[in-house]
Amino acid sequence: MALDHRSDWDLVNESQFISALKALPLHPGARGLMDDCAVIKVGTQSLIITTDMMAEDTHFMPDADMADVAWKLVTMNLSDLASKGAAPIGLLLGHSLGRDDARFLEGLNEALTAFGVRLLGGDTIAATGATTLSMTAIGRATHHPVPSRKGAKVNDVVYVTGVLGRAMLGFEGAAEHLDAFNRPRARLDEGRALAPHVTAMMDISDGLLLDCWRLAEAGGVTISLDPAAIPVADAARLDDCLRWGDDYELLFTAPADADLPVAAHAIGVVNARADTPLILGQTPLTNPQNLGYNHG
Amino acid sequence: MALDHRSDWDLVNESQFISALKALPLHPGARGLMDDCAVIKVGTQSLIITTDMMAEDTHFMPDADMADVAWKLVTMNLSDLASKGAAPIGLLLGHSLGRDDARFLEGLNEALTAFGVRLLGGDTIAATGATTLSMTAIGRATHHPVPSRKGAKVNDVVYVTGVLGRAMLGFEGAAEHLDAFNRPRARLDEGRALAPHVTAMMDISDGLLLDCWRLAEAGGVTISLDPAAIPVADAARLDDCLRWGDDYELLFTAPADADLPVAAHAIGVVNARADTPLILGQTPLTNPQNLGYNHG
Repeated sequence: MALDHRSDWDLVNESQFISALKALPLHPGARGLMDDCAVIKVGTQSLIITTDMMAEDTHFMPDADMADVAWKLVTMNLSDLASKGAAPIGLLLGHSLGRDDARFLEGLNEALTAFGVRLLGGDTIAATGATTLSMTAIGRATHHPVPSRKGAKVNDVVYVTGVLGRAMLGFEGAAEHLDAFNRPRARLDEGRALAPHVTAMMDISDGLLLDCWRLAEAGGVTISLDPAAIPVADAARLDDCLRWGDDYELLFTAPADADLPVAAHAIGVVNARADTPLILGQTPLTNPQNLGYNHG
Repeated sequence: MALDHRSDWDLVNESQFISALKALPLHPGARGLMDDCAVIKVGTQSLIITTDMMAEDTHFMPDADMADVAWKLVTMNLSDLASKGAAPIGLLLGHSLGRDDARFLEGLNEALTAFGVRLLGGDTIAATGATTLSMTAIGRATHHPVPSRKGAKVNDVVYVTGVLGRAMLGFEGAAEHLDAFNRPRARLDEGRALAPHVTAMMDISDGLLLDCWRLAEAGGVTISLDPAAIPVADAARLDDCLRWGDDYELLFTAPADADLPVAAHAIGVVNARADTPLILGQTPLTNPQNLGYNHG
């Protein structure tokens, strides 16, 4: 998300924190805390589990409609499941009371209904100060192997499922894009359909460039993007559209001859690892700090 | 927990919020949001999942050692798994950066090591103001049916696994009880051993009386407690010991002839439902608001 441009100190601190987390005793299903979700084998099935937090001031404005915030909390979590091709089982909510709880419940109900997902549990607390929310989503893998950020192969094509920059324009008030910012949809159907065809997949929550960088890093490859091929909501602001997050489209790689079941935009190719993991047109990108919403 | 005595307004608001949550689309495994955990069937297995939040000012003091806070966050979640007789699979952390993160990580590492549990994933965010933390624990049921709050039968005996009031005395500074407040243990081994023998089980996080009330309500019975039989850390403060929370012992019911594998204290009996769900000695208790740490 792009509401918050934190200081370098915060970024360093956050990446240090995450590095320290990675050094703790990790479950093998944690995928080294490098992926969007954890994968747990249960008998012959794989369960997918993810957790996300949202905080006032950082992820939503103090005057945000809490119904939209609830919706986005659901989308954020389900989008992680979508990137694994998972079918949702349910959601657990961590809610701190205080700010417009009735609207929050309305939005939560609307999101549960829209996505056909049910609540599994939660915890409700009283807290002082800014509202903090958490959600955990659990789902069932529909395809093995479960897609991951790793796996992009040289000569694969890089795809995105939809137009980027709509959430940004909606945040700025453009009427036709308000829905993209306030009520984004998780690409659950697309993720399930694509899972058997992709070599790597993730959702774009932090901006296309940053998430492409991560996909390339995870696969040990270099991704070359063709800027003219990337679908954006405002061509005059290409750069912003590629860096602003919150679009919740799927980013994936697949062999050039893959018969994709979902309409998607081919935006680049996978090459052997060059000096940098990401090249935009003719420009090698060298610093992930400038590419999008950085939270590790 | 008893750090926070909230106003009636908060209590009403919180119970209204929880009632509204119960009216949302619920997964059958949510157990109507009436239990400590959700139960998800996966093939022949049952997974147990629970989420808990902790907030500065509400659940811990601003000057608390964040290592202790991390430990307690783990215990709180694992104690819910213990009450289901579940073996932990892993934990997901929701962390808002800011307050003494290095100490938090140390305590988290100590708790993971002490309980033999691993991290599955998480989310790290920047937030303003008071620190809010969330954790989700997932485990595997070791016995079917999975114990629940429901199920206490007339003539069952009511048991508790350990002494109550130690966390309170530790909070107040008593040297020999500091550990009970700062580093409580989840009764995972006891929960697993007891699961095949109990008719109902829950953990005591909000005070014995309030949790007994809930167990009786869930079972549609009346519990009669013998105050002289309840093990407390300070007999002169029986009332406080029965109302303060944070002890994380297990509360359960079992038939009088059950051959329990764990030493436990018989503290009362289950009777057919009388006018109130809970009787302490000769005194029927009529108002759950006064019984402990009330957060639904």
